[in-house]
Formats: sequence, C-alpha cells, structure tokens
Amino acid sequence: MRFAHVMIRVNNLDESIEFYSTVLGMKLQDVVVNDEYQYTIAFLGYGDDRHKETCLELTYNWGKSSYEIGTAFGHLAIAVVDVYKACEEVSAKGGSVTRPAGPLKGKPDSIIAFIKDPNGYQIELVTQK
Amino acid sequence: MRFAHVMIRVNNLDESIEFYSTVLGMKLQDVVVNDEYQYTIAFLGYGDDRHKETCLELTYNWGKSSYEIGTAFGHLAIAVVDVYKACEEVSAKGGSVTRPAGPLKGKPDSIIAFIKDPNGYQIELVTQK
Repeated sequence: MRFAHVMIRVNNLDESIEFYSTVLGMKLQDVVVNDEYQYTIAFLGYGDDRHKETCLELTYNWGKSSYEIGTAFGHLAIAVVDVYKACEEVSAKGGSVTRPAGPLKGKPDSIIAFIKDPNGYQIELVTQK
Repeated sequence: MRFAHVMIRVNNLDESIEFYSTVLGMKLQDVVVNDEYQYTIAFLGYGDDRHKETCLELTYNWGKSSYEIGTAFGHLAIAVVDVYKACEEVSAKGGSVTRPAGPLKGKPDSIIAFIKDPNGYQIELVTQK
C-alpha cells in the first residue's frame, strides 16, 4: 500500500494551482477534465511522478466556489530548510502568513509557521530534519 | 520543500491508530504527548522514517470527540495492487466500505472504492500504477 494523495476541493482551480506552484513550489503533474460530471482535477507535488510520491489533488467542481472547511481536518504540512526564510518568501509571493515563524508552544526546539491557501486551508511550515 | 504530512483531528486516538495500522497497514512511527496543551499526536505512514515520506498525523485533543468534517476536505487516497481484494480485506478487518470497488464514473478504466475511517473521513482506494 502507498499513501497516494490527499484531495481537497477548491473554489478556483487556476488560483489554487498558482498558489501551490508559485508560493509552495509544487509541480503541476496532471490535469484531468471530466465533461460528463463537470469537474476538473489537478495533481501537484514535489516529484515528477504522481504515482510514486504522495501528492495533492485539487478538485474543482464547475461553478462551485463555496465549501465548509469544518473543524476536523487540520492542515497540510510542508517541510522546508528554514521556516523563517520560507515565511519571508511566502509573503513576498503574496501568500498569507497567519502564524509567523517561531517556536512551537511547549516544544521550543521546533520552529513552525502557518500560512493559509486561497481556500482557507491551513498549511503548516515545519523544519526539514 | 517536501510534502511532510497531513493532519486530521480524531475522536479516539487508540481507535484511529488501530484502524490505520490494522485495516490500512500503516506503521506507527511516532507518538508525542503534550501535557501542557493537553493533546497527543501520532504519526503513521508506510515508510520507517516520517522525515522522508509523507505521513499522516492524527491529533487527539484530550477529551474532545466531536468535530465537523465539513464539505471542503475531500479524502485521503491509498494506492493498492487490487482494489477489489483490498475491499474484501478491509471488510474482513471490520472496516466500513462505503462505495464498493468498481469503475470510476466517466473513466471506466480506473477502479476505485471508498471506505470510511472511524471519524468519518473518506478514504479512497485506487489502483497502484
């Protein structure tokens, strides 16, 4: 078994592809349009082959741009070399840093930050070990 | 940058660890207890090192067992060799198959199924390519 992907619904596919590629450095791996059921999905990730590494699936249901984030789903986490520098880069690229880089409460040796994607999903930046 | 993990909140940590390890074959990689902020997190995945491959982070906030799944988050997808056989195994281990194995609508060469975790999260089973 392999952890293939995580699917999240998005309000505007172009906007989300732009965010995950430009701000978070993912590659657009595949786009699948389903005319019959009126949705378009995009796969993005850090590898070249979405069948080898866990990737992100963005689903855009045509014409639908309002979803409830709920309280159950937490976040996607992206590991970076330097969380402070990554936050500066995210801000410079127009991303929204909602919790600035700094030590995790109760675990001061872990440096984290949170940013928000265009749909309101939380994304944690953590230090790559 | 690396896709580090996906965090979901769970109602009962032991129950969820049992599900993801026994039913979905993940390994329990790490457990972190935070007494000060009263939560316990567990990392599970298919690799041995959670700092190398994307893993799942389960967060249990002590005493909290009610969350809203919402409509935005879609699912986690697990790739398997044979979706039909995987569904039989999931059922035999007490898992809940909510959409039996079969062709994807509008894309009949893709065989998928959906199961539900103990918290209500949707998990898609897809064929490993």
